[in-house]
Amino acid sequence: MPSSAEVPLTLLLIFVSAKLLGEIFERLRQPAIVGEILAGVLLGPHALGWISPGEAVSLLGELGVMFLLFRVGLEVKSSELVALGGQAMLVAASGVIVPFLCGWGLSIWWGLPTLESVFIGAAMVATSVGITAQVLAAGGWMSERASKLIVAAAVIDDVLGLLVLAAVSSMARGAVDYTDLAITAALAGGFTLLIIFAGARVMGSLLPKMRSGMRGVEAEFTIALSLLFGLSLLATYAGVAAIIGAFLAGMALSESIDQRVRPLTDGVTELLVPFFLVGIGLNFDPALFRDGAGFTALIVVAAVASKLFACGLAALPLGRTDAVRIGVGMIPRGEVGMVVAQIGLGFGVMAPSVYGTIVFMSIATTLIAPPLLRRAFRGAAARGESDALRIG
Amino acid sequence: MPSSAEVPLTLLLIFVSAKLLGEIFERLRQPAIVGEILAGVLLGPHALGWISPGEAVSLLGELGVMFLLFRVGLEVKSSELVALGGQAMLVAASGVIVPFLCGWGLSIWWGLPTLESVFIGAAMVATSVGITAQVLAAGGWMSERASKLIVAAAVIDDVLGLLVLAAVSSMARGAVDYTDLAITAALAGGFTLLIIFAGARVMGSLLPKMRSGMRGVEAEFTIALSLLFGLSLLATYAGVAAIIGAFLAGMALSESIDQRVRPLTDGVTELLVPFFLVGIGLNFDPALFRDGAGFTALIVVAAVASKLFACGLAALPLGRTDAVRIGVGMIPRGEVGMVVAQIGLGFGVMAPSVYGTIVFMSIATTLIAPPLLRRAFRGAAARGESDALRIG
Repeated sequence: MPSSAEVPLTLLLIFVSAKLLGEIFERLRQPAIVGEILAGVLLGPHALGWISPGEAVSLLGELGVMFLLFRVGLEVKSSELVALGGQAMLVAASGVIVPFLCGWGLSIWWGLPTLESVFIGAAMVATSVGITAQVLAAGGWMSERASKLIVAAAVIDDVLGLLVLAAVSSMARGAVDYTDLAITAALAGGFTLLIIFAGARVMGSLLPKMRSGMRGVEAEFTIALSLLFGLSLLATYAGVAAIIGAFLAGMALSESIDQRVRPLTDGVTELLVPFFLVGIGLNFDPALFRDGAGFTALIVVAAVASKLFACGLAALPLGRTDAVRIGVGMIPRGEVGMVVAQIGLGFGVMAPSVYGTIVFMSIATTLIAPPLLRRAFRGAAARGESDALRIG
Repeated sequence: MPSSAEVPLTLLLIFVSAKLLGEIFERLRQPAIVGEILAGVLLGPHALGWISPGEAVSLLGELGVMFLLFRVGLEVKSSELVALGGQAMLVAASGVIVPFLCGWGLSIWWGLPTLESVFIGAAMVATSVGITAQVLAAGGWMSERASKLIVAAAVIDDVLGLLVLAAVSSMARGAVDYTDLAITAALAGGFTLLIIFAGARVMGSLLPKMRSGMRGVEAEFTIALSLLFGLSLLATYAGVAAIIGAFLAGMALSESIDQRVRPLTDGVTELLVPFFLVGIGLNFDPALFRDGAGFTALIVVAAVASKLFACGLAALPLGRTDAVRIGVGMIPRGEVGMVVAQIGLGFGVMAPSVYGTIVFMSIATTLIAPPLLRRAFRGAAARGESDALRIG
C-alpha cells in the first residue's frame, strides 16, 4: 500500500544530517552539539530550505528536551540539590541580576526607549539548561559537582526569570502589580520546593505499591513517563518551564526507580535530541544580524560576559576550576530569551529588529557555550577532583 | 519562564489514558491494546472531544509503529524469513484473493456499482501488521513459528495489496495499464527481495567498519536509526508501506547489531506505540456504523471471515494450531484499508457512506483480532510446541 514519503523523509533528513555534522565536529575536536545546530541552519529556510520550522519538528524537539532533562534528573538526588542550595541560589541570583542590568543599561545607553530596554534585559536573564545538559551528558560529566550546581542554579534561575518576566510584563501593562508578583513567586517557588523536598520521599513509598499492582509490560517505565508528563504539565501551570518539571520528575525517581528505565529513556533521548538541536538551528536567520550588527554584537558580548562573570564570581568559593565551569555552563539562553522577546513583541514595546537581535543572541550564546564548556571540563578534570577533595 | 501547557497536556492525556485503559483491560483478561484504542475513541471528537486527530499525534503514532516493526525485525533472521517464504506466499496470496473477491462480490450483490465494488474489495485486502505485532510482542510470542510466518506473509501481502490498488486505480482512470502494473510489481517486489537477500550480508560487513570509524556516543544506535529511516523512505518510493521498510531494516541488522540497541529501541516503542493506538481510536465515529448498518455489518463479517479462513486454510500444512494463529493474525486492517478508501473517494468512485463503512471495518477488525489472537496463542502454547516438534 502506498504511504506518504513525507514523514520518513523529514526524519531521515534531520536525524542523519544532525548526526553527520555532529560526527564531523567531533573529528575537528569541537562539540557534536554545535554541528547538530548548524545542521538545522543548513536545512532551514535561510540556507537549503529543505525543512521549515513547523509544529511537527518542534513537537519532537520539545519532547526530546523534556526527556533529556528527565534523564539528567535521574542522576541527581534531591539531597545533593538541597546541599548545593545556598551556593546555587547565589549563582542563580547574580546570574539573573547582572545580565538584566547589563541588557537594560546598554540598551538605554544605545538610545532605546526605557520599556524596550527593560524587556531586552529580561530576555538576557534565563539560562536554557538543555544545551549545557546535553554537553555534560555527552562528556560523561553529569556526576561532577559543578554540573550538579549548574543544574540546581538553572532551576532557581528559571523561577527568578519568571518573576522578572512577570514584573516587566506588568510594567508594559501600565503599573507593577505586587500582589500578582507575590502570587506568581509563591506558586512557582512553592511547586519547585515541594517536589524537591517531598518528591523523592513520596515516590519512594508509592513506587513499590504501584509496581506490584500493575500488570502491563514495562510498568516501571509507564509510571516514570506518567510522572514526567504530569510534572511537566504542572510546571507550566505553576509558571515554570515544562523541562523544569521533567527534571524534577527525574529527580523524584532517581533513588527508587528500576535501573531498566535508564536505557529506555536513553533511547528516546538519542532519537529526539537531534530534533531539538536542529529546531534551534532552523530559526537562525543571518539577516537578523545584518539588520543591526553593532547593537547585536554588543548584546551578544554582554550576554556571554555577564553570565560568565556574574555566575563565575558567585561560584568562586568552590575553587577557580568549578567557578569557570559554572560560569560557562550558565551562558546558553536557547529558546527562553526568544519567548521573552515574543512577549515584548506582543505588547508592542519591542521593535522587530530588536526581536531579531534577541533571537540572534539566543542562538549565538547556544553555539558559543559548548566549546568553552568542553574545554572547561576536559582540561580541568584532574584539578577538578583535587578541588573536590580539598573543599567538599 | 512560561511555556505552553499544550504539549505536556496532550502527551499526558494520551499516554496516561491509554495506559490506564490498557491496565483495566489486562485485569479483565482482555488485551491491553483494545483498551488503548478505546482510550482514543473516548478522547476523540465523537466522545469527550478532548483530543482531535491532527498532524502532531499522527506523527508520533507513525513514528511509533515504524519503531515497533523495526523492533520486530530485530528478532527475525532473513534466513528464517526465506525458509518460510513458500508457505508465507501461499498464506499472503490466498489472504489477498479471497477477501478481494468477497468484498467485490458482496458489494455487487448488495446492488452497488461495479467500480465502487472493486474498490471495496481492494480495501479489504491488506493486513495491517502493526496491531498483530504489538499483541505478539506484548505476549512474548514473537519467536513462535506462527508469529514469524504472520510477519513474512504480511510483508508479501503489502506488496500484493499495492498491486491490487494499482490495478483498481488504473481501472478508475479508464483502462488497466499493464506496463505500469509490471513496473510497480518489479519495483516493490525487487526492493523487498533485495533487502531480504542482501540486507543482512551488507550490514554484517559494513557495521564493523562504521562502528570503528564513528566517534559519537551510541554510534551503534545512530547507525540503526539511520538505516531505519532510510529504508522506510526507500520503501515508500518503491510503493510499499514505510513500516515494511522499517521491518526490513530491523531484519538486516538482527544478526550483527549490538545488543544495547534493543533496550534503546524498546524505550521509543513503549513511549510512542500508545500514540499509534490512540490515533486509530480518534478516527472512530459511531455514526459511520449507523449510516449503513446492514451493509457495514456484512462487510465486517466478510472481512474477518475471509482472512481467517483463507489464511488459515493456506497454513493448514503447519498444523491446526498454527493455522488458527495465522488466520487470526492476518485479520486486522488498521490504517491500510482507510488509505484505499480515501483513494476511491478521491477518484469519485466511492460514496462517502461507503467510505465510512470501510473506516468502520478497519477499526472493527483491529479491535476484534487481539482477543482472538491472545486466545489462539495462549491456550495453545503447549500444543504449539508439540506441533513444532512433530512437523518442523
